[in-house]
Amino acid sequence: MDLTTLIGLILGFAALIGGFLMEGGHASSLIVGPAAIIVFGGTFGAVIIGFSLQELKTVPGFLKDIFIDTPIDYVGAVDKMVETADRARREGLLSLESHLPEIDNDFMRRGLQLVIDGTDPELTRNMLEMEISSYEESQGLGVEIFNAAGGYGPTMGIIGTVMGLVHVLGNIEDPSSLAPAIAMAFLATLYGVASANVLWIPFATKIKTKTARQVTQMELVLEGVLSVQAGENPRVIREKLLTFLPERERSRMVMNENVRMGM
Amino acid sequence: MDLTTLIGLILGFAALIGGFLMEGGHASSLIVGPAAIIVFGGTFGAVIIGFSLQELKTVPGFLKDIFIDTPIDYVGAVDKMVETADRARREGLLSLESHLPEIDNDFMRRGLQLVIDGTDPELTRNMLEMEISSYEESQGLGVEIFNAAGGYGPTMGIIGTVMGLVHVLGNIEDPSSLAPAIAMAFLATLYGVASANVLWIPFATKIKTKTARQVTQMELVLEGVLSVQAGENPRVIREKLLTFLPERERSRMVMNENVRMGM
Amino acid sequence: MDLTTLIGLILGFAALIGGFLMEGGHASSLIVGPAAIIVFGGTFGAVIIGFSLQELKTVPGFLKDIFIDTPIDYVGAVDKMVETADRARREGLLSLESHLPEIDNDFMRRGLQLVIDGTDPELTRNMLEMEISSYEESQGLGVEIFNAAGGYGPTMGIIGTVMGLVHVLGNIEDPSSLAPAIAMAFLATLYGVASANVLWIPFATKIKTKTARQVTQMELVLEGVLSVQAGENPRVIREKLLTFLPERERSRMVMNENVRMGM
Amino acid sequence: MDLTTLIGLILGFAALIGGFLMEGGHASSLIVGPAAIIVFGGTFGAVIIGFSLQELKTVPGFLKDIFIDTPIDYVGAVDKMVETADRARREGLLSLESHLPEIDNDFMRRGLQLVIDGTDPELTRNMLEMEISSYEESQGLGVEIFNAAGGYGPTMGIIGTVMGLVHVLGNIEDPSSLAPAIAMAFLATLYGVASANVLWIPFATKIKTKTARQVTQMELVLEGVLSVQAGENPRVIREKLLTFLPERERSRMVMNENVRMGM
Amino acid sequence: MDLTTLIGLILGFAALIGGFLMEGGHASSLIVGPAAIIVFGGTFGAVIIGFSLQELKTVPGFLKDIFIDTPIDYVGAVDKMVETADRARREGLLSLESHLPEIDNDFMRRGLQLVIDGTDPELTRNMLEMEISSYEESQGLGVEIFNAAGGYGPTMGIIGTVMGLVHVLGNIEDPSSLAPAIAMAFLATLYGVASANVLWIPFATKIKTKTARQVTQMELVLEGVLSVQAGENPRVIREKLLTFLPERERSRMVMNENVRMGM
Repeated sequence: MDLTTLIGLILGFAALIGGFLMEGGHASSLIVGPAAIIVFGGTFGAVIIGFSLQELKTVPGFLKDIFIDTPIDYVGAVDKMVETADRARREGLLSLESHLPEIDNDFMRRGLQLVIDGTDPELTRNMLEMEISSYEESQGLGVEIFNAAGGYGPTMGIIGTVMGLVHVLGNIEDPSSLAPAIAMAFLATLYGVASANVLWIPFATKIKTKTARQVTQMELVLEGVLSVQAGENPRVIREKLLTFLPERERSRMVMNENVRMGM
Repeated sequence: MDLTTLIGLILGFAALIGGFLMEGGHASSLIVGPAAIIVFGGTFGAVIIGFSLQELKTVPGFLKDIFIDTPIDYVGAVDKMVETADRARREGLLSLESHLPEIDNDFMRRGLQLVIDGTDPELTRNMLEMEISSYEESQGLGVEIFNAAGGYGPTMGIIGTVMGLVHVLGNIEDPSSLAPAIAMAFLATLYGVASANVLWIPFATKIKTKTARQVTQMELVLEGVLSVQAGENPRVIREKLLTFLPERERSRMVMNENVRMGM
Repeated sequence: MDLTTLIGLILGFAALIGGFLMEGGHASSLIVGPAAIIVFGGTFGAVIIGFSLQELKTVPGFLKDIFIDTPIDYVGAVDKMVETADRARREGLLSLESHLPEIDNDFMRRGLQLVIDGTDPELTRNMLEMEISSYEESQGLGVEIFNAAGGYGPTMGIIGTVMGLVHVLGNIEDPSSLAPAIAMAFLATLYGVASANVLWIPFATKIKTKTARQVTQMELVLEGVLSVQAGENPRVIREKLLTFLPERERSRMVMNENVRMGM
Repeated sequence: MDLTTLIGLILGFAALIGGFLMEGGHASSLIVGPAAIIVFGGTFGAVIIGFSLQELKTVPGFLKDIFIDTPIDYVGAVDKMVETADRARREGLLSLESHLPEIDNDFMRRGLQLVIDGTDPELTRNMLEMEISSYEESQGLGVEIFNAAGGYGPTMGIIGTVMGLVHVLGNIEDPSSLAPAIAMAFLATLYGVASANVLWIPFATKIKTKTARQVTQMELVLEGVLSVQAGENPRVIREKLLTFLPERERSRMVMNENVRMGM
Repeated sequence: MDLTTLIGLILGFAALIGGFLMEGGHASSLIVGPAAIIVFGGTFGAVIIGFSLQELKTVPGFLKDIFIDTPIDYVGAVDKMVETADRARREGLLSLESHLPEIDNDFMRRGLQLVIDGTDPELTRNMLEMEISSYEESQGLGVEIFNAAGGYGPTMGIIGTVMGLVHVLGNIEDPSSLAPAIAMAFLATLYGVASANVLWIPFATKIKTKTARQVTQMELVLEGVLSVQAGENPRVIREKLLTFLPERERSRMVMNENVRMGM
């Protein structure tokens, strides 16, 4: 389970609903069917028009990414690359084949397979870079879809509210029903703004930040694989890969290194 | 028929109108001539000013693109390129000429024709790249036109609403007509926001996403044509073209490949 | 006369005013001096501050561009370049001098003059590219000025409306004058939003799209002039220049070519 | 005095205040202390937080730039560069030293000094380019500061208005004070929107357009200095520098040239 | 203590609250629990969803950066680099080792360590550039987080206000409670807009401007370290590093230089 998605959703909705209840409101008055149909139906309709069926089929996968934790272990990746470089120097590139199944990271495994197959270094770089940019593009689609929903949400809210007011003002001779009807109209705006700002836009941000971390790791692995292929010194490889790490990870890394050195 | 355009439009309008009816509104109160004239006439006028007649003549073509399905078969394109590379290696580049008419993809056919004509590889690349960027620019025009309409829609809605209020307030001595008149004024905002967010902006997104897929396929074909010209190994070509595919297509591709291998 | 500017303006204003009249409003109630002074005076003042006198002096020229048609004939330019290449091959570069006065296109004439003068190809390219980018920058100024006006318009409308409301609320003891006074206040918003969305922003778009077409033609001519200088085959030049054309022009072009071939 | 800054400010404020007076308002009702404190204090506070003391110290200098005219004489710069190239060819690069004090343009003087000192052409280019980009960055700071103020202004206006309404509604039992109090609340929006759109944003635009002209001149001088160093033909230099000029300046330039030629 | 953060916050809040008190409001009426819960809880929830735990853990560090002064001494860095270049020329690169502990600037020390270790100049440049871009990315995260909060703030304010109005209108039969309840609803907008524009957005700007200054210094040091490694003349190094300085620092720098020369 992705912890911050969970905590953020609970905190966000608890704050909105809790604040409303503290003011003395009744939770039931926040649930109005027609407003929900207008806002969510309208948002989904507008999103669906803009994309193809194949693109929309990726949405469940993105939702899984948002809710399931996918830890990224930069330090582990650096350690694995250095260990591999070490083995390649001592036992030769071909010896890596038997150790491939131990590697969890798909991208690292595919990269090392290319090295073992004796692929030309330039082609290895091109194919791995192409894979990274293809991954970025696939993920960018998720960002686009959720951001589209985040853009349509509030405007569908406005549409719902205006429709509600049209209805209300058409029945203005019955003043007793006026205020609750206006309240109902406002709920459309509430649904639109809240869904955009507590769900769709934060979801798009989540995909973007997860992708950025994943891409940094892939670039680190790409550099490492090419260094292994070039037969560089494992110590120099470690130094080079270190510069890919975000500052906050680097201190941890350096500590690990010192421990290794002390062994 | 483009499925998602159809489903999205039906879902979107069903949600907006259905929600309104569920609230107890009458569909007839959603139709007001003057508001429609102000919003749609104003939007079309503003869009027309910004472009030339020749550019505006492309709009029906873009609408066709939005409503008619144009399936893109990455896997088929890769298979066709690999098959062509295979034939070129076995029977020579000139043998491709007789098979050109079997190729559906215009861009692939033009590219292979250049290869058969013995065009210099650098010039082949330049001309195909120029064609891709010229295609992107032509499609970008459609995105611009529909986005312009999406921008003007809501502002024309505001203009209609303000005009309605000006009229209403000028006749304020007759309070009985006040509320329905205000409702009518609000319809201008409704038309403006709804047309922008259920029609124009999703249409622009549709053109953009269709173009992106088409361009990916064209780049794949460009790479394939140049590889055929260079006489590369069909297996390596398959590997290289594979990296152009979105992740979701790749698994299907790899499966196909395995089937082929097994033959 | 630029047809779409004219049609767009007539359609836009006819829709806005016609819709208002259909609702039963009086055209006279749309004209309020003070609101117009606030909105237009404020917009012009804010625009003037941001630019220099020399830059503002270009505005009449841009207005002329917006209202006067400047047809761009890609096909004619390609034909002219191919014809010139043909003559240069048969009669030599110097023979072009006597035909220069027949060429309408200033940029083509200047480019060919450089070729006739024996300017180094690299310098020819640099000077023509510099001229293109200098043209783009000059035109970009017009886009900036009209977009600035389009940005200030609605905010000046808000200022006028707030000022109107301040005045109205200060005289609230006289309720009979309340409604028409509010209507007058709203007119400021109407003027601001309408001037921005029917005049300034579409005008900026017009300059941008006209410039884009002009620049495409200049790039086509630049490529053609360099090909003439390099003494390339006229048929290959035609093929190359063809890729600059927007798709919609290309079919026309190819038809012309076939007619020529048939001769 | 910068003419357009002055005219724009006078026209802008005259239109806003004049329109208000024409509607029958009293100028005194536009001045409300607390609203001004909220809007201007809030804007300045928010701007100050975002920048360092050293950066904020540049604001008076930018205000001087906005109000004091700094004419840019492209034609004069071209003439001076050509004259210098002429002298350098006839009398040698070292002869320029004695004429340096006659040159008003600091950047041109520093560039020629590098040439006289025999600096390597590549290093000369790097140092002058670095100086241009450092100048652009310094000026960009002013644009950022004024744009920040232009962004905070209207939001501080909203804060002031909401605060005013909070106060008003808290004292609603006293209806006689209601309307003027609301008017006062609106003044916060008025101050915020007007200060942003008549002062801060136009000021930022002014810095941007002045910087663009200055940078064009610096690039022209850079090209000229390098041409002098390379000992190019003064006539060719004039041709090359001519392409830097905005179209509107070029005709003037060509005229000057013809006059010179006629001498 | 960062002076401008402190002054800006005090000035901003003093202006907002002071203006409110001057209007005759009671400070107590600005404090409403439920509105604060909705706005701040909602903002934090939405921000938390979008980022990972590790990324959110950097927030306290960024807050420290915003409130603690981190003076950047360009002139001191130039002086130190020139002094180091001087020593390296006189006593050799290895002699720098003993002076490293005297250098405060971490980045300069790491760079010089690479030089002392005899790292290849190209690799030195790559590793230091990688470190700069990694630093920029880490800081960019802070800008993103605070800008996200600045975007969610006002929308959460709207949500709170709409919820308040829903509640108010649901209890409309009790008119005596109407006005204060609406006031309470407005406070949500107030909290949202004020927190975004006095805290989150200025904080993001602060991180951005601090990072820009830091990066300029790092680029200066990078250039200096490479010049030391290349054994360039200290006087030329000073000239080159001078061009990195913002204009306002350069005069100070030149003064220092003259003083040194006079020694």
